Amino acid sequence: MEHLSVTAFLAMLVVMLAVAKIMGAIAQRIGQPAVLGELLGGVLVGPSMLGLVDTRFETIELLAELGVVILLFAIGLETDLAKLFKVGATSLTVAVVGVVLPFAMGYAACLALGLSSMPAIMAAATLTATSVGITARVLADLGQLSSLEGQIILGAAVLDDILGLIILTIVTELSEGREVSPGSVARTTGLAISFLIGALAVGWFVVPGIFRMARRLQLPGTPTALALIIALGLSWLADRSGSAMILGAFVAGILVARVPSSREIEHGITEIGHFLVPLFFVVVGASVDLTALDPRTAESRFALLAGGVLIVVGVAGKLAAGYAPFWFKGSKLVVGVGMTPRGEVGLIFAKMGLAAGVLSAGLFGGVTLMVMVTTLIAPPLLKRLLGPAPGEAHEPEVDGIDDLVTEA
Amino acid sequence: MEHLSVTAFLAMLVVMLAVAKIMGAIAQRIGQPAVLGELLGGVLVGPSMLGLVDTRFETIELLAELGVVILLFAIGLETDLAKLFKVGATSLTVAVVGVVLPFAMGYAACLALGLSSMPAIMAAATLTATSVGITARVLADLGQLSSLEGQIILGAAVLDDILGLIILTIVTELSEGREVSPGSVARTTGLAISFLIGALAVGWFVVPGIFRMARRLQLPGTPTALALIIALGLSWLADRSGSAMILGAFVAGILVARVPSSREIEHGITEIGHFLVPLFFVVVGASVDLTALDPRTAESRFALLAGGVLIVVGVAGKLAAGYAPFWFKGSKLVVGVGMTPRGEVGLIFAKMGLAAGVLSAGLFGGVTLMVMVTTLIAPPLLKRLLGPAPGEAHEPEVDGIDDLVTEA
Repeated sequence: MEHLSVTAFLAMLVVMLAVAKIMGAIAQRIGQPAVLGELLGGVLVGPSMLGLVDTRFETIELLAELGVVILLFAIGLETDLAKLFKVGATSLTVAVVGVVLPFAMGYAACLALGLSSMPAIMAAATLTATSVGITARVLADLGQLSSLEGQIILGAAVLDDILGLIILTIVTELSEGREVSPGSVARTTGLAISFLIGALAVGWFVVPGIFRMARRLQLPGTPTALALIIALGLSWLADRSGSAMILGAFVAGILVARVPSSREIEHGITEIGHFLVPLFFVVVGASVDLTALDPRTAESRFALLAGGVLIVVGVAGKLAAGYAPFWFKGSKLVVGVGMTPRGEVGLIFAKMGLAAGVLSAGLFGGVTLMVMVTTLIAPPLLKRLLGPAPGEAHEPEVDGIDDLVTEA
Repeated sequence: MEHLSVTAFLAMLVVMLAVAKIMGAIAQRIGQPAVLGELLGGVLVGPSMLGLVDTRFETIELLAELGVVILLFAIGLETDLAKLFKVGATSLTVAVVGVVLPFAMGYAACLALGLSSMPAIMAAATLTATSVGITARVLADLGQLSSLEGQIILGAAVLDDILGLIILTIVTELSEGREVSPGSVARTTGLAISFLIGALAVGWFVVPGIFRMARRLQLPGTPTALALIIALGLSWLADRSGSAMILGAFVAGILVARVPSSREIEHGITEIGHFLVPLFFVVVGASVDLTALDPRTAESRFALLAGGVLIVVGVAGKLAAGYAPFWFKGSKLVVGVGMTPRGEVGLIFAKMGLAAGVLSAGLFGGVTLMVMVTTLIAPPLLKRLLGPAPGEAHEPEVDGIDDLVTEA
């Protein structure tokens, strides 16, 4: 990739922020969550349409990563750990069924389409993903982050990230022509779970102390800077120790929410998020490659066919996962729909499969179509299921994550 | 430059933020402006000492540029244009004398050191620079941004940026072995001045209208996002049209300060600045190459000699510039000291000279030393001249740029 000049960098930032605001405004006008507009805005300015924003530039990619770290940290700040534990079994059921069922159904469907075993496994693997970023943002857009359904979806999406790491390990070994070793699967699982438990347990005692010390030392600077250091530090540690980066950011948010200055921190993070979070959604949109869906080639006709099948299987599998915890009294449909968007996680899986030569161009196009459709239908469906009646305006909480998320 | 992974990126951000906070705290403890600690923190974590932060990564460099854009935008938000105009003649005198005198004295001194004409011109050119970022930040650290001296220094530092563009044009032509063409000098001057006047004149009428329209359209999102779009957009336009990027950011701040929601915008920009502005100062510190000053080589002994001479000439020239407006009743010494730091502008000139082969390694070392010393002595000197008496704590304005700057 060539060098990104300051001039081009500034121009891309202006385009990304402007398209996020304008398309977000239009989405809200027609009664949709703003995040839908930001995603579509990204498709519009991305390489396959206007070509104004190129997500292959390292700096653009890293700023988007920073955006999702800030988003998950902000979500963590709003998350009540006790509440999350209370719905833990329900979330775990949704997560596990939401991985197993789409994978099994996807694998069978791909074999039925005449694909061989490896491409079928790879395509099925992309069906297991849930984009915790998009899911959480839609819930926050609708002011439902702390509802019972919201907490179940959030917990399941976080657990899905751990399951995703395990699947990634398996798929990587398979795509390299190796046997799946139970040892490496156990290792990945162990690392991810130990990070989650270890960071929570250690941070529970250490983080309040850090803030107390900073206050006593009269360190110049707001608690926000310290909170950012903890968020970025735990994201780094998670990534470094073989867990998922955004798990670290989420845990950091849960830990920092307990310190006395958490309201002030929330306010500061919201302002920073206003700038960085929309960049993430625009970049996810811009990463979609529409050229893989050009209907003039035979490959693309297969892409459309495969995409259609994967969409049906992908939506059905996650919806069924919502109904899996049969004891749950709330809306199982809401939970199922909330688990549907594959977002950037699905795109990462698909690109890995393409790079490894396991996915053909046609099948990659189909997977892309499935990621795009599942990502874009979830916001309007959830809005319809959860949102206020038409004409009734949604009143975002002042200073809260709802504000970050609705107005950004 | 190799690829910067997300892991390494997160680690560098944590290091940069942490060192900025800790060193900033130490600087304040010993009665110095926080920015001094941030600069020294940068030297500490940079390639020539701990090697934790590498400023050659494109993303790190671009984030620092974003930091200085945000800083100059924030400074512009606090700037009273009428006040700036009132001291215009004084600022212009300081700026012009502060370019001509250090250049002439530096050129003569370099010839006396036995250097030939081209290296002497290049080294003298670095003496003309004034770092508006560092100057403005120190003034804000001390709560003196809106004092009479502060406004004169700020105006002169901005004008110095225009003069710097002209010098850059001349030096580039000379270093390429061409004759200096009066046409290209006139063109550079014309472009820089027309951008300044044009952007102010057009923006004066257009910017309030944009904010009114955005309010009427009920665009979701805070005025802060719109303000950021204008700041980044004008920075881009300035850079694109051959003027200086930070001039665009500064003009954007002056324009946005006039809209009704400017207090809210100032607050949002302050929070974003808390994150991005320290990155700029750490990167400036980390860009200093201490290896050019290793005293074991003959080249480095020359570097120390040349550096010593350039420091004397560089400080004397800018101090004299402060005394040039003989009619000015305030502290001429404060103005002179305020113009002293060369900062990142001096480093950019020096690196250009090194890359063009005009500056030898020894002379580059000397210039680096001059940049470092003039940058690091200005904050403590200004603090001594302007700061509160020992024991008396400086009370930063809440929500203002002082807050951004003192606490960041």
